[in-house]
Parts: sequence; structure tokens; C-alpha cells
Amino acid sequence: MFMRIDHIGIACRDLEEKIELFSRTFDLTVVAREVNEEQGVKEAMLHIADGEGGGSYIQLLEPLSDDSPVGKFLAKRGEGVHHVAFGVPDVEEAMATIGEKGVRLLDERPRHGSMGSQIAFLHPKDVGGMLTELVQAAKRQ
Amino acid sequence: MFMRIDHIGIACRDLEEKIELFSRTFDLTVVAREVNEEQGVKEAMLHIADGEGGGSYIQLLEPLSDDSPVGKFLAKRGEGVHHVAFGVPDVEEAMATIGEKGVRLLDERPRHGSMGSQIAFLHPKDVGGMLTELVQAAKRQ
Repeated sequence: MFMRIDHIGIACRDLEEKIELFSRTFDLTVVAREVNEEQGVKEAMLHIADGEGGGSYIQLLEPLSDDSPVGKFLAKRGEGVHHVAFGVPDVEEAMATIGEKGVRLLDERPRHGSMGSQIAFLHPKDVGGMLTELVQAAKRQ
Repeated sequence: MFMRIDHIGIACRDLEEKIELFSRTFDLTVVAREVNEEQGVKEAMLHIADGEGGGSYIQLLEPLSDDSPVGKFLAKRGEGVHHVAFGVPDVEEAMATIGEKGVRLLDERPRHGSMGSQIAFLHPKDVGGMLTELVQAAKRQ
């Protein structure tokens, strides 16, 4: 089911500062920047490796407002790991398989993720306290 | 510097229960179990993928005592992501390079990690609130 660890989503207060920190410290390159109004974040993807069906990244997330999910996370827990995403071949199929096993899905249908991906979130309480994202990467051109 | 996301370390109260949950929900296989007295944990590695220089895993961690680092983490934050580990070709070289950039190392020299690896931790306050581990995997036979 899981082909790779797709990304680690890290909540931060200042995206530009953290891009500078991570790229300088670990010699990583930003391969995408996006504003996702639906999720209330602006974000950057820093490339680590290529894997089966997609890549592996650090995803830096700055909330667009204090009352967005990432804004509330920052107020409660401070900066740090917000979620972990795993690459799957087909997100709808993975949602169905996982849902049948009793794990609650936070999304009824896939939504738009970074870099043209299709994604869905699982309830952290059903996955050991880890907010878990499923990612079907966009087909490579 | 980073070749892969090596593993996501997840703190849990009951290792056997979480092994059952993760293996059943995501069809993952346990490839190693260890007790690491130095770090005060018993742990299991669930294999996700192979990558450059080593694999990618979910690492489940149960503390051996309440006053161990993972025991204190659970008391403060509850179950969930404890740290994130990245694969490097040479852990001593990576420690030197990262240390020169002003990030504090929690280890003066590499210590023993899962499955014969050599590891070192970075101070989470210097890495966006993420407890970060560097992993040099054991050479494959």
C-alpha cells in the first residue's frame, strides 16, 4: 500500500525563515511553492529523494490565519511536525482499504495536495496520534 | 547530505498493540525488534521502502520507564510523532557539516541506532521544533 514516505509536514510561523534554515543547514532545494487556500496554508516543498511513484520531501507550512488548522496547531503545540504523508499508487483505493479496517477518514473524497497530487487525511486518534496523509503524486510528464 | 527519509519515530504506550494496528491497517511488516537500554526504549521497525543507502521505516517506540526521554515525551505530549530520521552517507561527516552551521548536536559522537546503524540527534529548537536524527545505516551483507 505505502510506496514511500512522501513528506514530513512541518508547521512554522515564518515560511521564508524556515526555508532559509532548512536549505542552508541540510543543503536542500525548494522545488515547489504554493498557497493552498482550501487548507489555509502557504507552503514550500524541499526535495530529499526520488522514490517509487513520487518523491520524498520536507514540507514547510505557514498558516494563512490563526483559525486555520495549522494556525490552531501552532497555538497549541508550537512549531514542529504537523503530519506525515505516505505515497500510495491510488488514493481512492487506499482510502477504501483503510476505511474498511476501521480507521476514520478526515476526507470523504480526495482533495488537492502539493504539486498536483491527490490527497486524503486519516484521523490521528486512529493512527497512534500521528496525523497521517495519503498521497497519490501527479503523473510525471 | 540527506539520501532518504529513514524513519518516523512514533512514541506509544503499548508496542504490541501499535505493531498490530500499523501492520494490519497499512499491510506493513515488522523487520526488526530491539531493546535499546541506552535510549530507554523497546522498539519495532516496520518496512516501507528501500532507498539510497538504506530503507524507509515506521519506528514504534515504547519507553522502558516513565523517566526515559520517550516516557517524558508521552507524559507531556501523548502518543504521536517523536522524531524524524534522515539517512546520510557518513554520520560523523554530517554531524561536522551541520554543527558548523550553528545547529546544536545532542550527541558528541555517534551512538548505536536500530538495526546496526550509527546515529546522532540534533537539537529540535535549531531545526524548526523537529527532533531530528541522522542515520548511517549498517552496511548490507
